[in-house]
Amino acid sequence: MTQPIRYELLRRDEHSLARRGRLTTPHGVIETPVFMPVGTQATVKTMAPWELAEVGAGIILSNTYHLHLRPGEELVRKAGGLHGFMHWDGAVLTDSGGFQVFSLADLRKITDDGVTFRSHLDGSLHSFTPESVMEIENALGADIIMAFDECPPYPATREYVETSLRRTLDWAARCKAAHRRPDEQGLFGIVQGGEHIDLRKESAQRLVELDFPGYAIGGLSVGEPKPLMYEILSATTPWLPADKPRYLMGVGSPDDLFEGVERGVDMFDCVLPTRIARNGTVLTSEGKRVMKNARYGDDFLPLDPNCQCKVCQTFSRAYIRHLLKADEVLGIRLTTYHNVYFMLDLMKQIRQSLDEGRFLLYKQEFYARYGYNETNAGEEV
Amino acid sequence: MTQPIRYELLRRDEHSLARRGRLTTPHGVIETPVFMPVGTQATVKTMAPWELAEVGAGIILSNTYHLHLRPGEELVRKAGGLHGFMHWDGAVLTDSGGFQVFSLADLRKITDDGVTFRSHLDGSLHSFTPESVMEIENALGADIIMAFDECPPYPATREYVETSLRRTLDWAARCKAAHRRPDEQGLFGIVQGGEHIDLRKESAQRLVELDFPGYAIGGLSVGEPKPLMYEILSATTPWLPADKPRYLMGVGSPDDLFEGVERGVDMFDCVLPTRIARNGTVLTSEGKRVMKNARYGDDFLPLDPNCQCKVCQTFSRAYIRHLLKADEVLGIRLTTYHNVYFMLDLMKQIRQSLDEGRFLLYKQEFYARYGYNETNAGEEV
Ligand SMILES: [Zn+2]
Ligand SMILES: [Zn+2]
Repeated sequence: MTQPIRYELLRRDEHSLARRGRLTTPHGVIETPVFMPVGTQATVKTMAPWELAEVGAGIILSNTYHLHLRPGEELVRKAGGLHGFMHWDGAVLTDSGGFQVFSLADLRKITDDGVTFRSHLDGSLHSFTPESVMEIENALGADIIMAFDECPPYPATREYVETSLRRTLDWAARCKAAHRRPDEQGLFGIVQGGEHIDLRKESAQRLVELDFPGYAIGGLSVGEPKPLMYEILSATTPWLPADKPRYLMGVGSPDDLFEGVERGVDMFDCVLPTRIARNGTVLTSEGKRVMKNARYGDDFLPLDPNCQCKVCQTFSRAYIRHLLKADEVLGIRLTTYHNVYFMLDLMKQIRQSLDEGRFLLYKQEFYARYGYNETNAGEEV
Repeated sequence: MTQPIRYELLRRDEHSLARRGRLTTPHGVIETPVFMPVGTQATVKTMAPWELAEVGAGIILSNTYHLHLRPGEELVRKAGGLHGFMHWDGAVLTDSGGFQVFSLADLRKITDDGVTFRSHLDGSLHSFTPESVMEIENALGADIIMAFDECPPYPATREYVETSLRRTLDWAARCKAAHRRPDEQGLFGIVQGGEHIDLRKESAQRLVELDFPGYAIGGLSVGEPKPLMYEILSATTPWLPADKPRYLMGVGSPDDLFEGVERGVDMFDCVLPTRIARNGTVLTSEGKRVMKNARYGDDFLPLDPNCQCKVCQTFSRAYIRHLLKADEVLGIRLTTYHNVYFMLDLMKQIRQSLDEGRFLLYKQEFYARYGYNETNAGEEV
């Protein structure tokens, strides 16, 4: 059996846990650390696949829960998997649907066998088990697929987290056994354990015994304070093998990228850049900007004068503000394109700083311009 | 003074009033007959300017009424006119706002001096006179600008149409006198006269005495039956000079293009391709298709197998249907792109048929496939 996902550790940072690496997938080689734009419903909202390539995306994420409900995995399989369906030649990762079942669906029942839930779209009854999720993810055909897990809420009692963790470990083993395309799709296990550092360690060690080609860290950014998230992260990555990629699920604001990379994370995904773009907020080297504000009404500068993206090379803040105020689709197309470019470019700069051994220095420089401190993170400039 | 808009008549059809011509503008040479996509609010809905160029648009229309209300002509002027504001290097035509004042705004008062109305956006009070409209259109900076006119409703009494026509002729003369950039922007007069053929003739003759670089035919497609519209058209174009372009305002379904060209029209604009695209309806060589229909659920053909556009070369009906059902912006981007390409390509085929002396034959061939007859025009295949 050929392992479809291979990770090569290129360089360790001397002053932190940060790593420069390279991920080989059936759809391209990806330099890490990497940011993955989110294409929930088999489309990164507002973007065409050639635009994803233009902004430098090598891998995107799509959601098993949403695609199972609509259009259904069978249609996607017939279209040649997500790559054929979307006409996207880069790599794809599908999550397991676990997070959405617990956050979006009307949850009916969790047992050791799996989860029964009602669709948030039409109330229809569905059931996810490790075996059924593997069947769905095999049909969707992503390069990287995630084991089915339970993501406990925050806060939760230690007892709840322990039970949930044992179940998630059992499900991980069942997913591995049920995975029918192991030489085409790499299956990652997911570390859980809530805020309990000993449970995170146990989870990591037990998963590593099962031997996956990559490991995700789940159950973070679910409501806990950021310092706690970073603390758990610092205590988790050391238990994961150095020769496998680590993926921090659902996390990826600009400051999270720095803090995650510093703690040894290789892969990130987050809806933030696309979601805030649809409200007209853009990420810039000087912080966020709310483009509907009146101050941009006759401002003919680009969204970010330091950005090399096609939008910033072409359009003014005044024009983009006009489009947003007039509810024109082109407005959110342009803010989305820029924001996704911004995140991918930021990660590129981070990789370069790692290559040149100046990651922590670059982090400091970025924060100085972006205006980060614990209380104003992400405030508008 | 240099005339910024020049028309060259290249060839007359032997079997109809159809003409092949060439329009020279400050932003490019345009082969006629031509279809102009509509960019009401300084954007052709969902499309980026480089996509307009890709689909072959040489000239687009934008709306004076909408741009005056938002973002205001002064901002557009500061941005370098519509070309600079939108970053569009092709030609632009602005209408006079007359049609929108009478159809969209809360109309307060029409006098011989002008029109007072309330904005449909915020109820604010505005006034359009021939002089103020020229000032707005001069600031917007389009290559072709339209004289301010009154568009009578259908049906209207002959008396109403006569009064309105006399006012529109008076306003046309005042527009010509008030036009401040005559060597950069060509001002077209607008023929009115409702359904009265003698009034149409009078309108055309009086306008021609004023000597404009082009003439529009307004007040059609306002509710009258199509055969009546075609009859009025046939009775109007013969009174317009052969060496000037004729523009049929707000008309442009596929069958209208053929019927208009046959009657000597050179320029068309219509929101149809972009508007129906947003409901998921596409124009194809075999008629319209409503892409949300269940029958396209697992149809992996392109929108139109005979179409060479990027969308049809890339995506399946099944994927586009999924995007539309899931309310994804990419869905309406793709249907819009295809529809605008379809209209521009159709007009290109019409021009080619004129070049080759087989226009009426091509019309027949097109209708045979598209499925046109008087009762099912535009029905879904
Ligand atoms: Zn940019
Ligand atoms: Zn097409």
